[in-house]
Order: sequence, then C-alpha cells, then structure tokens
Amino acid sequence: MSDTSVCLSRQRRGTDVALLHEDRLFPAEEGSRAVARRLYELIKDLPIVSPHGHTQARWFARNEPFPDPVKLFVQPDHYVFRMLYSQGMTFEELEIGEDEIEGPREVWRIFATHYYLFRGTPTRLWLDYAFQELFGFTERLNEKNADHYYDTIAAILKTPDFLPRALFDRFGIELLASTDSPLDALGDHAAIRESGWKGRVIPTFRPDPVVDPQHPGFHENVRALGALTGEDTLTWRGYLRALARRREYFKELGATATDHGHPTAMTEDLGDTSAATLFEQVIKGTAYAADLEIFRGQMLTEMARMSLEDGLVMQIHPGSVRNHNAQIFARYGRDMGADIPGPTNYVEALRPLLNRFGNERKLTIILFTLDETTYSRELAPLAGHYPCLKLGPPWWFNDSPEGMRRFRETATETAGFYNTVGFNDDTRAFLSIPARHDVARRTDAAFLGKLVSEHRLDEDEAAELAWELTVGLVRNAYKL
Amino acid sequence: MSDTSVCLSRQRRGTDVALLHEDRLFPAEEGSRAVARRLYELIKDLPIVSPHGHTQARWFARNEPFPDPVKLFVQPDHYVFRMLYSQGMTFEELEIGEDEIEGPREVWRIFATHYYLFRGTPTRLWLDYAFQELFGFTERLNEKNADHYYDTIAAILKTPDFLPRALFDRFGIELLASTDSPLDALGDHAAIRESGWKGRVIPTFRPDPVVDPQHPGFHENVRALGALTGEDTLTWRGYLRALARRREYFKELGATATDHGHPTAMTEDLGDTSAATLFEQVIKGTAYAADLEIFRGQMLTEMARMSLEDGLVMQIHPGSVRNHNAQIFARYGRDMGADIPGPTNYVEALRPLLNRFGNERKLTIILFTLDETTYSRELAPLAGHYPCLKLGPPWWFNDSPEGMRRFRETATETAGFYNTVGFNDDTRAFLSIPARHDVARRTDAAFLGKLVSEHRLDEDEAAELAWELTVGLVRNAYKL
Amino acid sequence: MSDTSVCLSRQRRGTDVALLHEDRLFPAEEGSRAVARRLYELIKDLPIVSPHGHTQARWFARNEPFPDPVKLFVQPDHYVFRMLYSQGMTFEELEIGEDEIEGPREVWRIFATHYYLFRGTPTRLWLDYAFQELFGFTERLNEKNADHYYDTIAAILKTPDFLPRALFDRFGIELLASTDSPLDALGDHAAIRESGWKGRVIPTFRPDPVVDPQHPGFHENVRALGALTGEDTLTWRGYLRALARRREYFKELGATATDHGHPTAMTEDLGDTSAATLFEQVIKGTAYAADLEIFRGQMLTEMARMSLEDGLVMQIHPGSVRNHNAQIFARYGRDMGADIPGPTNYVEALRPLLNRFGNERKLTIILFTLDETTYSRELAPLAGHYPCLKLGPPWWFNDSPEGMRRFRETATETAGFYNTVGFNDDTRAFLSIPARHDVARRTDAAFLGKLVSEHRLDEDEAAELAWELTVGLVRNAYKL
Repeated sequence: MSDTSVCLSRQRRGTDVALLHEDRLFPAEEGSRAVARRLYELIKDLPIVSPHGHTQARWFARNEPFPDPVKLFVQPDHYVFRMLYSQGMTFEELEIGEDEIEGPREVWRIFATHYYLFRGTPTRLWLDYAFQELFGFTERLNEKNADHYYDTIAAILKTPDFLPRALFDRFGIELLASTDSPLDALGDHAAIRESGWKGRVIPTFRPDPVVDPQHPGFHENVRALGALTGEDTLTWRGYLRALARRREYFKELGATATDHGHPTAMTEDLGDTSAATLFEQVIKGTAYAADLEIFRGQMLTEMARMSLEDGLVMQIHPGSVRNHNAQIFARYGRDMGADIPGPTNYVEALRPLLNRFGNERKLTIILFTLDETTYSRELAPLAGHYPCLKLGPPWWFNDSPEGMRRFRETATETAGFYNTVGFNDDTRAFLSIPARHDVARRTDAAFLGKLVSEHRLDEDEAAELAWELTVGLVRNAYKL
Repeated sequence: MSDTSVCLSRQRRGTDVALLHEDRLFPAEEGSRAVARRLYELIKDLPIVSPHGHTQARWFARNEPFPDPVKLFVQPDHYVFRMLYSQGMTFEELEIGEDEIEGPREVWRIFATHYYLFRGTPTRLWLDYAFQELFGFTERLNEKNADHYYDTIAAILKTPDFLPRALFDRFGIELLASTDSPLDALGDHAAIRESGWKGRVIPTFRPDPVVDPQHPGFHENVRALGALTGEDTLTWRGYLRALARRREYFKELGATATDHGHPTAMTEDLGDTSAATLFEQVIKGTAYAADLEIFRGQMLTEMARMSLEDGLVMQIHPGSVRNHNAQIFARYGRDMGADIPGPTNYVEALRPLLNRFGNERKLTIILFTLDETTYSRELAPLAGHYPCLKLGPPWWFNDSPEGMRRFRETATETAGFYNTVGFNDDTRAFLSIPARHDVARRTDAAFLGKLVSEHRLDEDEAAELAWELTVGLVRNAYKL
Repeated sequence: MSDTSVCLSRQRRGTDVALLHEDRLFPAEEGSRAVARRLYELIKDLPIVSPHGHTQARWFARNEPFPDPVKLFVQPDHYVFRMLYSQGMTFEELEIGEDEIEGPREVWRIFATHYYLFRGTPTRLWLDYAFQELFGFTERLNEKNADHYYDTIAAILKTPDFLPRALFDRFGIELLASTDSPLDALGDHAAIRESGWKGRVIPTFRPDPVVDPQHPGFHENVRALGALTGEDTLTWRGYLRALARRREYFKELGATATDHGHPTAMTEDLGDTSAATLFEQVIKGTAYAADLEIFRGQMLTEMARMSLEDGLVMQIHPGSVRNHNAQIFARYGRDMGADIPGPTNYVEALRPLLNRFGNERKLTIILFTLDETTYSRELAPLAGHYPCLKLGPPWWFNDSPEGMRRFRETATETAGFYNTVGFNDDTRAFLSIPARHDVARRTDAAFLGKLVSEHRLDEDEAAELAWELTVGLVRNAYKL
C-alpha cells in the first residue's frame, strides 16, 4: 500500500473532494444533526461485532489475495447484479454463472456505465464507502473512469494490506460469524484456530439442509448426517441425537448461535409419537406437502428445546419466497437475486413453540422479518412480552437507511431498545462490512439525535443507547 | 399537599432542572416548532374529555386514597409490567397475582433499577409526566433515588389533594367513561350521581361477556342477564329484549356508547329465522367454532340495529389475539400483558353490517385498529365514504407519538380530520390520564404545525382543527 | 379572458394574498427546502405527460365550453362527493344521479359551506390550485364567497380561453391518454386526428368489459366484440383473434398501452386446451365463481403474450373492491365513490405470468397498488429483479403528498428510481391535471431535496433524476 497514492484513513471524509460527506445520513435539521454527530463520534470507532453473515472462513484460513474487481464487487453480490438484471443486462453479459468471454474488465465497464441505477439505494452507499475508504477514489464511478477504477483496485488487491486477515484487522472486527451447513466439517474454522492468528471467526449452525424436506438433496443430506455422526438418522431418535452432536461440534469451534431460514414462521409442538411418525413419512417420501411444513415447524420447536439444553442462541429468518424466477433457477440455481418476500404471520405461527418454551429466561430467540407490517403489529408486542424473544435488525431488502428508520419508529415504542440485538451485516461481500456498520451507526445516531432534539430522551441516555446498539446488545444477545 | 415541597403547577415545565422539556414532542425544525407551540398553547388547558377507558367508578364513588406507589404505578399497568417481564423479571418478583413476600418497596426498587428499559416508549413519557407534574420530581427515577421516590409518593398519596375526586377536578376532566359489563349493576355510578359530587363519570355498555360464546362464563352470564331483566334469555327474542333493556339502564346512568372487543371485525346479517336457530345452537353448546364467530358477527349487526333505535354510539375494537401466553393465562388469567395484535380485515368483514345500516345518518360507528396497515388501505377509505363510520384514535400499542403521527399521515388525506373523533386514553391508570392527553395534544400540534410550515394548511385552519381534535370532535362523535 | 380581471400566470404564486404558497409541499427545514426549490425550478415548466387517466376524448373532439362550476368540480369528482357524503350530505342534496331540483348554484353553496372538510386532503390542494391559477381567486372558498366564486367561474367558463383545446395548450400537455372499452369505436379520437388540431390525445385499451365475466354486460359485450371484428367470439380462438384485432385498431389511433383493473393480481398459465375448455364454460355461464377468477388470471397472461407481439405496454391496477356499498350501487351504479381497497398479494399471484414472460426484455408491465404494504415487501423486490416489471406511481387513495413520500421511501432503496415510471394523474377532472402534476413535481423535489441535504445523493444527480421523474421515465416506459 505504501507505494500507492491511496489514502485509507477515515479522516479524509468530509473534505471538499469526496464521495462521502462527513454528515451523510444525519438529519438535515441543525439541532438534531448536532446531537447525531456527537453520538456518532462516540461509536464510530467501536469494534465491529458481526454475529450473522455469509462471508467465508476459507478466506481467513488461506489468507490469499482477493481476485479482480468484478469477482469482488459485481458477481458475488446479488444486490448489485439484480439491479443490473432488472434493467435489461443479462447474466451472459455480466458473466454470472456463465463462461468468461469478454472478461472482467468488460463486465466492470458495463457496471460502471450503469452505476447511476443505484442512486438512492444502500448499495450505492456501501460501494462508495469502499471506493473511497479502501481505494481512495474521490470521483464517482462512471463510464469514463471505469478503467482507472479497475486498474487501481486490481493493483491494490495484490498488496499485503489487502489480504483478508489484514483487512479483518484494519476493519476493527471483534468477531465475525459465518453461516454453515451441519454437514460442513468446519475445516477452515479449525485451520484458523490452529494458525495462531488472533482474529475471531466462528461458525453458525444452519440446519436447513437437513431439516427442510424441500431443500435440494435433503434425503442425501440426512444420510450424510448419519455418516458424519455415527447415528442412525433414519430413525427419529437417531436423527435428533445426530443434530445435537453437530450442534456440540459447532460449539466446540466457537458457535454461539443457530440460524433457521424457513419459508414461514410456523412452529408445531407434536407429541413425541406423532413427531416420530411424521419423521418416518418424511424420510420415506410419503408425506403430503402440507406435512412438510408441519415437519419444519416441529423442527423449530426441537431446535428450541436443544437450545435450552446447549445454550445456542436461535435465529429465525422467515418469509422469503425462494427462487421465484423459475427460468433463472433452472439455469443458474439458488441465490441469484430472485428471492422475493411474502406476507408473514408470527402471532399464530409461533404460538406452539412459545406455549412450550416462551417463558424460559435461559432461551434466546431472535426474530427477523421481511414483512415490515409485522414490526408494530406483531413483533414488537411479542418481544415486548415474552422473555425469550428479541428482535433482529432490519434484514435484506430492509437493511437500508429508510428500512432501519422504520424499524426503530415502529418497534421501539412497544419493545423498547433493550429487546433488540444491535446490527447484523448479513453480507457475502467482505468489503462491505465496515460500510454497512457505518450506515447502521449513522442511522441509529440520527434516530437517537431526533429523539433527543424532540426531548423524548436525554442526551446522556442516548449516548448509553448508542453504545448498546453498537456493541452492548449484540454481545449480550449472541453470548459473545 | 400544602405541607409538602411539591410544586404541581404546569409552569415548572421547561426550567433547567426538569424531567419534561416544554418543547417535548414538537418538531425540532424551528419553523414547525414555533407553529406547534402556538397551537399547543391554544389547547393545553382545554378540559379533558375521556369517552373510553378502564378506570373504576368505584374510586369516585368511595373517594378513598390510592394505596402505595406500586399498586398505583406498577402492578395494575400492563404497559409497565410486560416490559419488565420481557426482560426477565418474574410475576413473583413483581408480586403480581402472587402473595406479597418482600412487599411493595422492594418491587418499587426493582422497577426503579430497570426504569431505563422504558427509554423511547410512551410509558416513559406518561410516568415522567406524573412524577414531575403530580409529585414534583426533577431527577429521573433510578436505583439510587428509588426510596426517595417511594417515600415521597407514599406520603403525598395520603393527602386530601390526592383523593380521586380532587384529582379528577385538578386534571380538568369534563367527562370520564368507564367500561362495564351488561351484568354490572352500576351501583358505583348510581352512588356518584346520588353523592352530589359534580364530576361526570358515565358507564359504557360492553356486552362481550354475554354476546361472545367463547367468553369465560358465557352461559352463566346469559342466565344472569335473564335474572337481571326478567326476560327469558334462553330464547332469541328474550335475549335481544334483555340486551335492549340493559342498554336502556346504562343510558339512564349516563351512557352514550357501547364497546365491542371482538377478535375480528366480522359482521353478519342473517335472516331472523337463521339467527334464532344459530342462537339456539350457541345456547345448547352444539354450535361449531366457526359458527361462534358468525354469532359474534350477527350480534354486531344486532347492536347496530339497537343503536339506531336508542342512539348509543358503537365502538368496535377488533384484532387482538387475547391471552397468547398459555402458561400466563393458566396461572394468572386475563389482561396480563399477553394480548398480541393480528392482521385485521375490515372491508369484507364489515360488509354485511354496512349493507344493512351503512347509509344511516343517525348511526355512529367508531372503528379502531391494532393493524396499522388498514389505516390507508381500508379504514380511511371506508370512513371517507360511509356516513355512519368514524375513525377512532390510535389504540393500545399505537397510542404513542409515532403511532399517532402515522395515523394522521395515513388516514387524513383520505378521511380528512372530520371523520375522526379526537383522543381516547383507554387507560386503567388514572394518574396517566393528563399525561396521555398531553402527549396526544402535543403530537397533534406537531402534525398540524408541520402542515402549516409546509404550506399545506393555513394557521387559522390549524387552530380550528387543534380545538376540534381536542374537544370538538369527541363531544360530537360521542354525543356528549 | 382578457376582459376579466383574472391573472392566470404562475408568477402570482407566493404573493402575500394567495391560496397557494410558493414553497408549499417543500420540507420546512431550510437546507432541504433550498435544494427542493432549485430542483423544482428545473422541472416546473416541463411539459405534462399524462399516459393514464379518465378524461374524455369527446371534449377535445367537440371543443365545447365546460358547463357550470358544479358539473365541473363537484358532480363528476368522486374524491369530492365521497367526502361530502361521508359527512352526511346526500346524493339528492348534491343532485348526483338525481333530478335537478334546486339547481347547481344551491349545490355549489353546500360545497362551499363544507369546504373545510377537505383540510389536509389532496383534493383541497388540487382545488385551490385551480381556483387560484385558473380563476384568479385569492380568498379561500367559504359560505360567504360561494356566490362570487360561482359567478366568476361560470363567466370565465364561457370564454374562448377556457375551451378544452385552449386549456390543453395552456396546461402544456404533451400527451393525454384516455381509457377506453375495446367496444369503443374511438370516433372522438379519430375526429381529433382529422381535425388538424395538434394536441396529442390517445386511447388506452382497457379490456375489462370483455375479459371479466363478472363485468355487467359481459356476455353481450363478447358478442358485440364479435360483431365489431367479424370473428366468432364464442370460440376461444376467435375470441383471442378479436382481442388482437381491437388492440391493433387502438394502436392505429395512437394507443401505446393497455390497462387491466382486476380485483386481484392473480394470473394463470393454463395449457391451451384447458384455457379453451374454461372459456367455453365461461361463455356458457356454467363456470364456478372461482373459475371466473382463474379466467381473468388467464386473460392477463394472454394479454402479456399479445403485448410481446404488438408492443403495447401493460398496466395492472388490482386490489379494489368495487361497489362496496350495495344500496348506492343498486340506485346509482358504478364509480360512485364506494370502491374500497383490500389486501393485495403480488408474489404468488404474478408467478404464472412471470414464469412465462418475466424475463422478456421487450415486454413492459407496470404494476400499481392500493395496498401500500406491498411497496417494500413485494413490489420493489419484484421490480428490482424482473426485466419486464416497472412500478407505477401511487394511485387513487395514495395519490397524495404523504402517499407519494411513502412510495419513494419504501420502493426506492430496493427498486431504485429507474424501475419506476413517473407520474399518472388518473383523473376524470380535466382542470385538476396541472394541479396534480404540480403536487407530484413538488413532492418529488422535496424527496430528492431531502436526500441531497442528508448527503445520500449529489445535487447534480438529483437534478437528472428530477427530469427523469417528470418526463424521462414516463416517455420511455410508455413508449411515447
């Protein structure tokens, strides 16, 4: 890095020539802005705690340079390519899931030419942050400077300061959690531990591949789970024991949480005999489609029971209609930007689980939503009553300044701040982590600043809350 | 009171040392704030009209001192104890529905230690208002001043100025409505009338215990209704006559309204023979669960019919899933902070009733919701068309600054201001009444101030509207 | 006009005596307001592009004077009379759908006396705009000046400057689309073309009367369609050919779009045999009610297929429960202010159509909603992925400053600006067209101004976007 003319310090923000203004995302009204600035000043350099995301442990196990700008910014980020796709660019042109023909420079040019499409989106905020803070750009990406951007980024990526572990340290990451299949041997996590490097990268137990009968490969996965644990996973007892064992293994490698991405928040609390019978039908493939949903619901309750035993925090992420675009799914598979939220009910759906475990003080269940109507109607009232429930931060399409503001405005008055759990970046794009946390910190400072300037909260309290929203609540909720 | 150093006057707000700032809840932007201040000045001292709530007529009939601070502020207020419960405190610790062990001072200390949990909630605004305006505190409640708070409040509660009738007068209450079972003999209301005290406390006819077959004790209640009225309430005709008689009795004691807390807004308009047959099945206990909902729906239409005859205003409060927490309900019963809103539909649900009576100009039906998505989609369009419909104020989890703002923003453009009915405090906590009305007045002044400063309304109009939203519309809608 | 003392120029806004303030609808905060002003300055005089509405081609074909003030402002505008109706005025009093008894002056007096009911509504903004900008009034309409208003308007309406074509030109209308039945011979459109007048008035193909089996007169309409086209519309093939022919005819007269006002967004993609069988049942009248919805869904997919062939842009306007008030419908018929929105689902509903045509780059489908909860949950994610989808502007009850603001706040972060299509006035009230576009331009300028002052967008970008939101996106999306 020393031989490039790139300035990486945070001090540059706010100079005359910059992509980022030092007051960005703060209220325009001077009084609120002044409070927001003071609050932000208290939290901007706090460590990053990232308990939920989709970065890869392998990056930190191997510590190899990131490849070219396109493989870093465009092709892995469905926020980026779904917008380009919606405006007529094809996966072929973007060389996503396709053979390379023109190569990354040409894809980068397409991206740069259409960078204006991201105006008003959080993607633009995240990208500009990385462009300025990490690569020192001060001019907006466009058709003309596309090659300059490309060459500069490509050169910098080869420097030692941009190896994954160096970036991890520079970003001030206190903890980073990946999300992993129960079938994952977690070799990369083990390698990181053995390497002597001090960065804390932990796994998260995401059992969807072995508890969702509609997950591709479910039946093979259940058998593989048996092979991995020495349990007979074709019996209900053996299957549950195998899951418990894998949870223990994840815990040994640092996991503190599980994650559950079901289509709905439906839970069930069948008697043991009924559950065993249902499992048998599921394994035989004779269960009706509606029963598969019941099985998923039963497994959420089983996971809650295990959490009460082993202490893993439970995250429930329902409400995404996956792979909505049949043609894209058939050709390119999952996670191609074609997951669409649907209406989600929590009140009746969670009742069986809550009737069983809702009053347990040693259980923590973090609820997420893609359906904002549930914040004030369902989620805040539920979390404002049940001791086991906490509200996860705005997620996915709602991980944005307006989305975060609506979350605070609709959840806080009923659930308070202390039934929430700080921020999740939930990203696949490692370089976006500091940008995303910065947006969250600024947006929280703006919200608190407004409360203070409207005399709904005193500034000493807002300062305490700013710290809680940034590091306190997340460490506590995720047992970090 | 004269021998305490407590200053109760409203003038103290805004001094340097205070819990409450004189500009609280006004917009931070100076122009809007200045208008809001001027509008608030016009309405802050207007009388309190409280046409819907859950205070007890007995307090005013007997006029005995309120007991200790915990029985006043903590144990009866589910807004307070549900937050404490959600954060791990137990009903045992809070001595709610349990034997007293440590006693109220110890419960108060727990409350004080956790007072920070209420940051950002309306509960905090209400409590601070009572603490400062009624008890003269200027320091935020916390662990250290808990005993001082306790002792001061306990002492003041014994003074004559804090007897219920004295507070009623000091609060400037023009009218206070309680909510009562049709089986209630209304002895306290009668006693108030006979006492010569001038305070206007009126009952509200809430027939849920005798029209909802799933209400605990429904069958005994229907029999008791028969005993009370001399009608054979096991026949459809006799049952309807008995209800009409009780409505008359409530009217004699001042009632101007009924209230209906059904699970949904479903209405029915069965022919008379079908209705009688259904009633017979309900009374025999042979009706299906779905038919019980139909019966409730039919009873809403019957109540509308009776309202057209006797002039009682009809309030419909649907959408709460009651007693969601099975363990809490089994041990402690109803109203323990575990009611959770669900999605609510009005458009199809109200159609049978509206097809029958929707165009009646002499009928007033006030609609409430816990599902904010219905404000702009369903409720404002309905109230902006049907002559009989008016919109109730934001209710329960939505009775908060942000909730009120969203109501105005989403309902006003379609329904206007004149299809709304002012504010309801809906409280069980008598001391919170002035605080709640103050929050509503400030929030309305803030909303109107913003409209004026954005030149969407002239200030003379805003002044008229401020008066309407505070006393005009409520007196008119509730026929007071 | 020259002989009246009315000043029509836009310059008068902002003077001391005026109904309209020059800064109306801009943020109160000075920094944001300043940016909003600058942005508005760039767009305020741009031409009006109106690709969707319900004005009548006949006005421009015949170019006759508009009748009296009541027939212009009150009786045809359901926004106006539904509010009056909701507050107790009757259709008899307003002489809507009834014989004239008192006459228009008396109706105007009722309207003027109740003008305060519109405070806080967009109707008020539109009316004040017309009153000041077109008729020169500077005093708010009220009981006292009702006759002065009436006489002034009546006099001005007779002047040549107020003939439809003169107003069209004065309003700066670049294009105006009407909405027409497939059975309409479009004689007025043809007459306009032949007249030599340069105003561009085009039809829109709205096939509801012949594709919705529950539309009054459906069966006669299908037969009439056959007579008009020479096809045997009682066969599936002939029916489809007839529709294709009418689409061609509409195109010849300038149409660039179709419009579909279905109860839901449900689509189907039946095989050809199944579709033919269903059509046969529909025509015979033997189809079940649920099958009628399936038929409508199938027809949306058929229309998409035809759009891919003939290039007409497709507009889908679902979610209105039509004719909710049975008594009003029985006596006065359709479009009497009694249509009420219901919850609308898009994600599953559109799937069949999108699975078939969703990835077509040559197809444009513009989605509208009356259910604002779908903006962030469903519509923005769908439009932010599928190449064929764009988001229509806030519609009907949501065509208002707050409605527009919520649309931008909830849709932009996921869909961006470029998956939207500018503004639709959707009006039956010709004189409200400039007022409605002015409200939209101001509200967009306000939104962009806020983004700029919060440093989420640079001002040069905001300026480009202001132009796009006003004329660029609409011309492009509607192929104008």
